[in-house]
Amino acid sequence: MLCVRVWRGLSPRCRGGHLTAWNRSRSHTGAAAAKLDLSGIYPPIATPFTAKEDVDYHRLQENLQKYAKIPFKGLVVQGSNGEYPYLTEEERVEVVRTVRRSLQADKLVMAGSGCESTRATVQLTERMAAAGADAVLVVNPCFYKGKMDSHALIQHFTKVADSSPVPVVLYSVPANTGLELPLDAVVHLSQHPNIVGLKDSGGDITRIGLIVHKTKTQDFQVLAGSAGFLMAAYCVGAVGGVCALANVLGQELCELERLCVSGRWEEARVLQQRLIEPNAAVTRKLGVPALKQAMEWFGFHGGACRSPLQPLTEAETKQLRRDFSSNGWL
Amino acid sequence: MLCVRVWRGLSPRCRGGHLTAWNRSRSHTGAAAAKLDLSGIYPPIATPFTAKEDVDYHRLQENLQKYAKIPFKGLVVQGSNGEYPYLTEEERVEVVRTVRRSLQADKLVMAGSGCESTRATVQLTERMAAAGADAVLVVNPCFYKGKMDSHALIQHFTKVADSSPVPVVLYSVPANTGLELPLDAVVHLSQHPNIVGLKDSGGDITRIGLIVHKTKTQDFQVLAGSAGFLMAAYCVGAVGGVCALANVLGQELCELERLCVSGRWEEARVLQQRLIEPNAAVTRKLGVPALKQAMEWFGFHGGACRSPLQPLTEAETKQLRRDFSSNGWL
Amino acid sequence: MLCVRVWRGLSPRCRGGHLTAWNRSRSHTGAAAAKLDLSGIYPPIATPFTAKEDVDYHRLQENLQKYAKIPFKGLVVQGSNGEYPYLTEEERVEVVRTVRRSLQADKLVMAGSGCESTRATVQLTERMAAAGADAVLVVNPCFYKGKMDSHALIQHFTKVADSSPVPVVLYSVPANTGLELPLDAVVHLSQHPNIVGLKDSGGDITRIGLIVHKTKTQDFQVLAGSAGFLMAAYCVGAVGGVCALANVLGQELCELERLCVSGRWEEARVLQQRLIEPNAAVTRKLGVPALKQAMEWFGFHGGACRSPLQPLTEAETKQLRRDFSSNGWL
Amino acid sequence: MLCVRVWRGLSPRCRGGHLTAWNRSRSHTGAAAAKLDLSGIYPPIATPFTAKEDVDYHRLQENLQKYAKIPFKGLVVQGSNGEYPYLTEEERVEVVRTVRRSLQADKLVMAGSGCESTRATVQLTERMAAAGADAVLVVNPCFYKGKMDSHALIQHFTKVADSSPVPVVLYSVPANTGLELPLDAVVHLSQHPNIVGLKDSGGDITRIGLIVHKTKTQDFQVLAGSAGFLMAAYCVGAVGGVCALANVLGQELCELERLCVSGRWEEARVLQQRLIEPNAAVTRKLGVPALKQAMEWFGFHGGACRSPLQPLTEAETKQLRRDFSSNGWL
Repeated sequence: MLCVRVWRGLSPRCRGGHLTAWNRSRSHTGAAAAKLDLSGIYPPIATPFTAKEDVDYHRLQENLQKYAKIPFKGLVVQGSNGEYPYLTEEERVEVVRTVRRSLQADKLVMAGSGCESTRATVQLTERMAAAGADAVLVVNPCFYKGKMDSHALIQHFTKVADSSPVPVVLYSVPANTGLELPLDAVVHLSQHPNIVGLKDSGGDITRIGLIVHKTKTQDFQVLAGSAGFLMAAYCVGAVGGVCALANVLGQELCELERLCVSGRWEEARVLQQRLIEPNAAVTRKLGVPALKQAMEWFGFHGGACRSPLQPLTEAETKQLRRDFSSNGWL
Repeated sequence: MLCVRVWRGLSPRCRGGHLTAWNRSRSHTGAAAAKLDLSGIYPPIATPFTAKEDVDYHRLQENLQKYAKIPFKGLVVQGSNGEYPYLTEEERVEVVRTVRRSLQADKLVMAGSGCESTRATVQLTERMAAAGADAVLVVNPCFYKGKMDSHALIQHFTKVADSSPVPVVLYSVPANTGLELPLDAVVHLSQHPNIVGLKDSGGDITRIGLIVHKTKTQDFQVLAGSAGFLMAAYCVGAVGGVCALANVLGQELCELERLCVSGRWEEARVLQQRLIEPNAAVTRKLGVPALKQAMEWFGFHGGACRSPLQPLTEAETKQLRRDFSSNGWL
Repeated sequence: MLCVRVWRGLSPRCRGGHLTAWNRSRSHTGAAAAKLDLSGIYPPIATPFTAKEDVDYHRLQENLQKYAKIPFKGLVVQGSNGEYPYLTEEERVEVVRTVRRSLQADKLVMAGSGCESTRATVQLTERMAAAGADAVLVVNPCFYKGKMDSHALIQHFTKVADSSPVPVVLYSVPANTGLELPLDAVVHLSQHPNIVGLKDSGGDITRIGLIVHKTKTQDFQVLAGSAGFLMAAYCVGAVGGVCALANVLGQELCELERLCVSGRWEEARVLQQRLIEPNAAVTRKLGVPALKQAMEWFGFHGGACRSPLQPLTEAETKQLRRDFSSNGWL
Repeated sequence: MLCVRVWRGLSPRCRGGHLTAWNRSRSHTGAAAAKLDLSGIYPPIATPFTAKEDVDYHRLQENLQKYAKIPFKGLVVQGSNGEYPYLTEEERVEVVRTVRRSLQADKLVMAGSGCESTRATVQLTERMAAAGADAVLVVNPCFYKGKMDSHALIQHFTKVADSSPVPVVLYSVPANTGLELPLDAVVHLSQHPNIVGLKDSGGDITRIGLIVHKTKTQDFQVLAGSAGFLMAAYCVGAVGGVCALANVLGQELCELERLCVSGRWEEARVLQQRLIEPNAAVTRKLGVPALKQAMEWFGFHGGACRSPLQPLTEAETKQLRRDFSSNGWL
């Protein structure tokens, strides 16, 4: 772990070079200590759009300046909350490049690079690394659900990880993909030297505990994929969280992290409980449009989504407000 | 409700000589603290059968003698693992009566009394109380899934709780019923003076945390319905667990409880993780036949299930053994 | 088939004796030709209750008199629409006895006798036969969903059929049980001499066609379990239907049968299409309470359901009326 | 209907111009008769790849020559069986262009142009029309499942249809998308002058019948999305089918069409039943790799799929062969 600390202490200037985090950490430490430290909180940042639904890079940068003041470990860029399926490959890469340029050097950029085909994922992963991503977050393919068994998924992720210039984080989000990355595939893939962790958004805490248990010899890092079960995930051995709600209540989620990591579980519980409803509102219940609306209330640029995502109705907006206010956040 | 108050006013002697947990907690605390203290670990005990598939009361009592040495808070009798849907009403009541007679007075007997119709549930609840149950565990009706909305379920449980001589614990077990007791119904019902808690076997830790949060003014007690997420449930505010695995590894689950309650989370995590696979094997994966097989290995009478539950195949038995041995239990 | 025709030609007087259809057909025809002819339309009759939720045998008989004027092949008694999970075993049997006494001798009484355990199903089947049922309709056990694989279900149904005095009809209704009777189990069981058919309420027409195909050497009879796909089921080889909507629009469903059987598909289609929405309203969408409300509109006794089934709300009643009126039935 | 025949009679040379089918049919016939006649059978053609997983245009053309001899109404290009999620936009367009050039002028080319975002779908639709597609088949977006309600989907398809130079066919394939295009959305969209039909692959025959019923004033055309329920779909009012199995048994599916259209239902049933298992094998059970394997057996170029789709295992290949041979096709 020393290596990681050394790496995180590198001056911003060093980071301006073309070495990726992965190459650098390897060059400093050798293969045995190669795994990137993922521990901490990440907002999977939203992508602001102009009125014409083009990516609004200006507002993106303004958001980044505000996020810079919050003790995040890094940002997830072009994850589900970034509306990645609605962006072209060019846009996905350009957003990552923009983020990397604006962000402090000591913050990780984890870039979503998953596509349906293996070849497209391999290519986009390389482009993301070239654009400055420190790691890639790779969602499992899901269109041919019936054929995406453990064998196929192991083949897929192995090829991607074999060729990726940066460490790979697996990404399981069954609410969107309709397919949970099978546990045996995760355990198998945890042995790959370039696969360093999993973002699990399914929220099955038994499964998360078992993944931690069965990968304990691999230094494999599990990140909670939602704020609703962040504390429970820490409790069973997760090292951090990628939480949509961190776009809105980032400071509070970092505080929850601090309480969990320092063993202050009673205080953590009180805070965690106040976050469940706001989190559900901006994810499962009302989705990205609600996340963006809540961002506006808390001083960030959210704005509209790309079509076919629709603005909230008036009733939905009221419900969203209630889910924040009844928990003391508004 | 009068009946409840009358019963609660009975002197300890009336109750058969020994103080029940219910009476004791009441005698210490008065009306304001009237809710039965459910905190602790409960095995939902299996029902032994003879070769002809009749209830084997002799073996049941032998099991009870062994359970008496484990610091359980009580037993759940005629829950899902007791094969209650396969027993007649007479048998269900007689098993509860047998358990109550054999068990130490300071252990709670929580009896499953849920039926599909409200009237049958009301009647069986009364019979269970008369047979000595300290509380009843009432599963939600589920056959007409599409009609069992919050309104219908609130009506159902309210009528049952209104007339029940003993406190009612709600029971949500979607793996069997195909229907999760809706959160808003749970929150509403938590206000009923004779509904004291919920056994939640769904394992959605976000939901469990939210239920604890939204019922915090009600002294409503949540029990984890499976050993796989027991530690996480404690972490978010549950007070105990009803765990099939406690039929087999009861001492270990009580140890896990002790570690959680005393805030020794690191040790708890190590123990919890070793219990996930054995627990999955005797519940979700291989069910009651596996639970009964494992009981045999650990010195209890398990035996066969009633038809149509089938004995394990040889391959399943091997897998079951592996799930225990690979975690150091066999 | 000759035997069946012979049997169907028996005078009503012969049917008044204590021989069941099964025994009689066997005595007339020998084992090889024993299968009961199921072809035709059956209402799965509702159970009327008094204001106190007791079975209202008087109103039941009045309904039966009205059904007697409709060319049904018979009645299904104590199926899902009879609220069987809400009746005691005594009530289930008594309702069947009442129906058999009131019904013309040439109409089949198919009695629901499925229970969760094999032993209870065997016993209730015998009682149903003794009460005059010509056949039993046996739903698959479903509580231990994960263990109810083809092997367990084949064991269950084989034991029930082995001991049943009357022919057995399998019953798959996944909307209620959460479990579809697996195709390979159906095909295997179709070979049993005392299993004569299947009521399939799942509505997967591909599956129904395949079942017809794979059982074609067995003289196995498939009944559509809902009016929504009755015509399509006839098209792929079903011989009839057990349709909740036949409690309301019985004459019309018999007319649809007549059109299908005589190959008048264009006329059948027009009629079928007008039945889909009313059927959905009284089944999937609004359930038994809606069925009973619609029965009132069409001159039958419907009345209330047993708790926890709730009466329709005003909005639901309006929607129900609309689903009938927009298709020209009200 | 005359208009359509006139249009289909246009010489190939006319088709090389810049008029799309939609414009041409409008110019020939006026608004009232504008809807394109979709009736008939379409194979959703597979995309052959080289050993390096590049599109093999040579083999594609060889397949097209063989399909030219079968009385298909047209081809679906870049549907689910064309592995469209694995192709780049360029490849998707180029495949359509290739097909249009090679195919007889009187065969329809229906091109899959659905993307997740509305803007991408609008753009690809235009490119597909420019590449010679006569119609586009537009699958519903599905990633943000919880937000893709009827309102959002109506907005999406309306924008796409408003701007599309060619008629739009809706496409619902819940096995892949995890989301069925809601019935009310279909009914609403059926009123759009540029939306001419629906490919429904869900197989819910009740729903298909209801869609036909509720769109009967719109001249809206429903195509069965799978061979397993083709006959039943014709029975309830569908006008054709887009069937993966038509890549293998195209002649037979056209024969089934002929039998259904001419009212020879008894013969149709015999043929339909023999097609269910082969169809299930190349779709739900074993997917595109099985489709491509079966194509090889029947004289077409199938070959391998793009990763992460894997080749069949030996056991799967045996099962596939059995599903064809046991029904007399091999």
